[in-house]
Amino acid sequence: MSKTVGIVMGSKSDLPVMEAAGQVLDELGVSWEMRILSAHRTPEQAHEFAVTARDRGLKLIIAGAGMAAHLAGVMAGVSELPVIGVPLGASLGGFDSLLATVQMPPGVPVATVAVGKAGAKNAAWMAVRILALSDEDLRQRHLAARAAMTAKVLEADASIQ
Amino acid sequence: MSKTVGIVMGSKSDLPVMEAAGQVLDELGVSWEMRILSAHRTPEQAHEFAVTARDRGLKLIIAGAGMAAHLAGVMAGVSELPVIGVPLGASLGGFDSLLATVQMPPGVPVATVAVGKAGAKNAAWMAVRILALSDEDLRQRHLAARAAMTAKVLEADASIQ
Amino acid sequence: MSKTVGIVMGSKSDLPVMEAAGQVLDELGVSWEMRILSAHRTPEQAHEFAVTARDRGLKLIIAGAGMAAHLAGVMAGVSELPVIGVPLGASLGGFDSLLATVQMPPGVPVATVAVGKAGAKNAAWMAVRILALSDEDLRQRHLAARAAMTAKVLEADASIQ
Amino acid sequence: MSKTVGIVMGSKSDLPVMEAAGQVLDELGVSWEMRILSAHRTPEQAHEFAVTARDRGLKLIIAGAGMAAHLAGVMAGVSELPVIGVPLGASLGGFDSLLATVQMPPGVPVATVAVGKAGAKNAAWMAVRILALSDEDLRQRHLAARAAMTAKVLEADASIQ
Amino acid sequence: MSKTVGIVMGSKSDLPVMEAAGQVLDELGVSWEMRILSAHRTPEQAHEFAVTARDRGLKLIIAGAGMAAHLAGVMAGVSELPVIGVPLGASLGGFDSLLATVQMPPGVPVATVAVGKAGAKNAAWMAVRILALSDEDLRQRHLAARAAMTAKVLEADASIQ
Amino acid sequence: MSKTVGIVMGSKSDLPVMEAAGQVLDELGVSWEMRILSAHRTPEQAHEFAVTARDRGLKLIIAGAGMAAHLAGVMAGVSELPVIGVPLGASLGGFDSLLATVQMPPGVPVATVAVGKAGAKNAAWMAVRILALSDEDLRQRHLAARAAMTAKVLEADASIQ
Amino acid sequence: MSKTVGIVMGSKSDLPVMEAAGQVLDELGVSWEMRILSAHRTPEQAHEFAVTARDRGLKLIIAGAGMAAHLAGVMAGVSELPVIGVPLGASLGGFDSLLATVQMPPGVPVATVAVGKAGAKNAAWMAVRILALSDEDLRQRHLAARAAMTAKVLEADASIQ
Amino acid sequence: MSKTVGIVMGSKSDLPVMEAAGQVLDELGVSWEMRILSAHRTPEQAHEFAVTARDRGLKLIIAGAGMAAHLAGVMAGVSELPVIGVPLGASLGGFDSLLATVQMPPGVPVATVAVGKAGAKNAAWMAVRILALSDEDLRQRHLAARAAMTAKVLEADASIQ
Repeated sequence: MSKTVGIVMGSKSDLPVMEAAGQVLDELGVSWEMRILSAHRTPEQAHEFAVTARDRGLKLIIAGAGMAAHLAGVMAGVSELPVIGVPLGASLGGFDSLLATVQMPPGVPVATVAVGKAGAKNAAWMAVRILALSDEDLRQRHLAARAAMTAKVLEADASIQ
Repeated sequence: MSKTVGIVMGSKSDLPVMEAAGQVLDELGVSWEMRILSAHRTPEQAHEFAVTARDRGLKLIIAGAGMAAHLAGVMAGVSELPVIGVPLGASLGGFDSLLATVQMPPGVPVATVAVGKAGAKNAAWMAVRILALSDEDLRQRHLAARAAMTAKVLEADASIQ
Repeated sequence: MSKTVGIVMGSKSDLPVMEAAGQVLDELGVSWEMRILSAHRTPEQAHEFAVTARDRGLKLIIAGAGMAAHLAGVMAGVSELPVIGVPLGASLGGFDSLLATVQMPPGVPVATVAVGKAGAKNAAWMAVRILALSDEDLRQRHLAARAAMTAKVLEADASIQ
Repeated sequence: MSKTVGIVMGSKSDLPVMEAAGQVLDELGVSWEMRILSAHRTPEQAHEFAVTARDRGLKLIIAGAGMAAHLAGVMAGVSELPVIGVPLGASLGGFDSLLATVQMPPGVPVATVAVGKAGAKNAAWMAVRILALSDEDLRQRHLAARAAMTAKVLEADASIQ
Repeated sequence: MSKTVGIVMGSKSDLPVMEAAGQVLDELGVSWEMRILSAHRTPEQAHEFAVTARDRGLKLIIAGAGMAAHLAGVMAGVSELPVIGVPLGASLGGFDSLLATVQMPPGVPVATVAVGKAGAKNAAWMAVRILALSDEDLRQRHLAARAAMTAKVLEADASIQ
Repeated sequence: MSKTVGIVMGSKSDLPVMEAAGQVLDELGVSWEMRILSAHRTPEQAHEFAVTARDRGLKLIIAGAGMAAHLAGVMAGVSELPVIGVPLGASLGGFDSLLATVQMPPGVPVATVAVGKAGAKNAAWMAVRILALSDEDLRQRHLAARAAMTAKVLEADASIQ
Repeated sequence: MSKTVGIVMGSKSDLPVMEAAGQVLDELGVSWEMRILSAHRTPEQAHEFAVTARDRGLKLIIAGAGMAAHLAGVMAGVSELPVIGVPLGASLGGFDSLLATVQMPPGVPVATVAVGKAGAKNAAWMAVRILALSDEDLRQRHLAARAAMTAKVLEADASIQ
Repeated sequence: MSKTVGIVMGSKSDLPVMEAAGQVLDELGVSWEMRILSAHRTPEQAHEFAVTARDRGLKLIIAGAGMAAHLAGVMAGVSELPVIGVPLGASLGGFDSLLATVQMPPGVPVATVAVGKAGAKNAAWMAVRILALSDEDLRQRHLAARAAMTAKVLEADASIQ
């Protein structure tokens, strides 16, 4: 059966960070598939993935990459789907992957989220917001999850009084 | 009649940059409304806008702000809709508004695009990609626009041979 | 009984850093209350806190937040009280929270101090300076604390001769 | 007659930026004096100014400086008054004066505001917030000014509908 | 007849900078072709160019791009030829295109030169050094050009005595 | 017998990073020699190395250095050979060695690769690409190595399905 | 008996880094005294030290400080002696102390060296170069030390052949 | 007759900035010679200049260079004299030349001053401080010049009262 979100990353070493996106999607009941695709080492496969993404039923693509992070840009150039980019930076303070992801030229946007694991989670949350526009059930789960987040902060607040 | 995209910005001085988003949406046939709302100077109005956004028919929000750019974050905190943030930087090389927009904590994502006018345009292009997920007509216009962009590059390429 | 300084932070994980502000205030005999309030996850509560701050007797607000640090800005937008912002940065070298805190637009200032625990302490020291303007007893304790700081450096200096 | 706020700057070339602080204070009815004092070229005079500031009736000090901006730090080290620092950066993107102003060690805080003219204005606005804690008339003027700022944004908002 | 160096750039607006590379190659007698190819707007054409580059006789590729500069990386991923990347930065101080060009992952190198026109020239000079390894005539012209550069500095030196 | 690639570094402490370049060259069957030469502490020896490099049979030079990384620039100034620079940064986020390596003036290019070990490897891969222009056997080994890299990503991709 | 070099630092926690300067001076036979003086916590003592430095026989001052590093600037403003500044950075990648030390205004120079322990050593080496201008014995020791440094690199080079 | 200070720069385009150093030295009565020497384009001449500097009577060297600014480092590596480095930055916010100048490895210090014209002046002022250690007449002129600087600030201060 077709999945809704494609999570791609440039290297298996990105898995521990990017699986946080899968966990958020699981909690919200959004199906996903995960692929290791390199813009530079497997350009054909990355291209193929992007070209066929919509026909295979994907609604949007989450792409995580580090260093000169081109994977999200490649997805956005080839596919018509919304692409969310997660900068997976380590060297140069993380500025390399952030700037290589967010500074896309007009017409080929990448919706960029925060650097690292916080960003991997937020890529999933952004996917949920987008998909909830036409999925009332998901929307209700999103609202419930937001309420739970709020409750958790309130609890933390109460716990220190 | 209700609009589809809300374009908000923190100051009237942001208008020359942010109207580039409106122009792209116009070209693609997506309706929009534009508001000047300050996260800091009109927090009530910004809050009210975000709280009522969905009920007034908005599908998503594009927020542009400079310096300590909080407007997109406020929108994302209050509203359940997808929020696209445009960093409108001038001082400190533009790093202030970029980092203040993109580095959102888990659960409250802002889909950040490039700094300045390129980003304002891409906010609109990202809105189009999202809306096209459930609007086949818009999708066809998006594909045509993408083809036109490609053609323009090919023409430029031909012109220098 | 009402407290003088409100210390707010965006997440319970900020507690180990921000309690350094409480310790300085304790040493100087300034009463404080501490709250976990998120500009993005509990915007209503953050707003409510800021709106009622002065009526509950608070004289000023110390706000610590990381990443796209908006909490101090929200406080300064809603409340008329002086707001002191502590950038709690970890990613991107700490530049994200610093710039998101300090670069406030005209009319809505946040008195920003250093990044991290040094800043949490200095937020308290700045509060003491402000409150001492109209509290002669506190002023004397401040002068004594300053003398003690000086003495400690002199002692360290003597210890290496 | 004694003034309430001391505005100091490191060089006459800083005047066009720093007089924005004086203008805000004038609008709010707060008296001020302005001095050119260099932490490095007139250290004695800078020291003398800081030592005598409180006895001459000053309640707080606004210090603007560029490059390796030490003037605010000198004021905070010598005087017990609250010191607000304005980074007047030009070279290295403005990062030099920002970091040299904000990164003060524990016990000697400088309340840092934004780089450049926005910061000069906000230094005055922060002074107003502090002084309004014990001056109900000033507080009312501050509230009125805040209402006017809000009104101005609302007007701008209305003007583009 | 086949050319030796392929100069590609992402947009016609890059032409004024990138033609400096052509001029240096002309002076050294190295043939070149120039193409406008966008990694994001014409990914098929960019891919096609890279795939066929060697068979059409190209020895190496010079790629200039700005913002999230992916063009050089795409060339290096698809083609086996040496790729020289020119960061054409304007926003964010030029750090975006520099980091997006140089921080390539192991196995897919881009030989990165300086930002802007100095880099466009040096891309050509690097091409000359590489080609001269197996072209004694070119090597002699390179040595002569180096001698001329040295002479020019010596002349400038003499002119100020 | 003469070697093909000269790997030089500024300090023995750079060895653990730079030997990654030697390993890649070994795998591809390219001979190399390694030298510790400091642009600042052994300028005569560094100069001598560069002057004689070509006559001793070297085809290109890989230079790794940290901090104010001048070694690659010295090589490029003295020798006519292609020079590949590896920024070995630790302090200031690695920006010091990156900028000191890549920002060479026109006429004296250094082909700069990524910071640290990824860069050391890529310096070797760039050397392979250059040398393969006139060595069909090496070219075949390069193509095989590229195929192996692709296969490894495909395997990783398969392993997570 | 009077010392030749004054080594000052802002805090006892700087000692492990700054004593590297003393060790280099010891090896070269230059006498020194060490003081903990804070530009902000002991401004009087710092001022007194600088005012009397020359009369007590000091020839130059080495000042190490972190964060908003003002100590070297204070020394250079008050004393006529050459002042060498060591940026002792930890937060914000070390950029805060570097910029706060090096960006001094015209007429009040601080000779700035590298960040951290490398800089502490180089402050001493710079002192040696300056003092050797009028001390032939020291000059000979400096030349010998330079020769030893060269020899050490040559040895390291030999050790890897 | 032999000169006291050697002012070197990498390119004739640096002259408008670097002649500010000559003007300060003229005002203080210190003789100087000026040379255009490139670490990369005229390495032999730069080396020769540094090797013979002391024997020709120079006491110290001021070196200005931009981009990957290696000239001061070359001088410090070859000559035993104190070397003062002026970062002449334009691209990348000036960070390239600053970091390439200041981050020298232990044993080979460059006394770095501010970026650009302020730095060119301060290089001269630092030279004066060093030379005044053994030249009482120059010392008196330095003290007078410092007094004049102080007077100028005091005058500016008086002019705005």
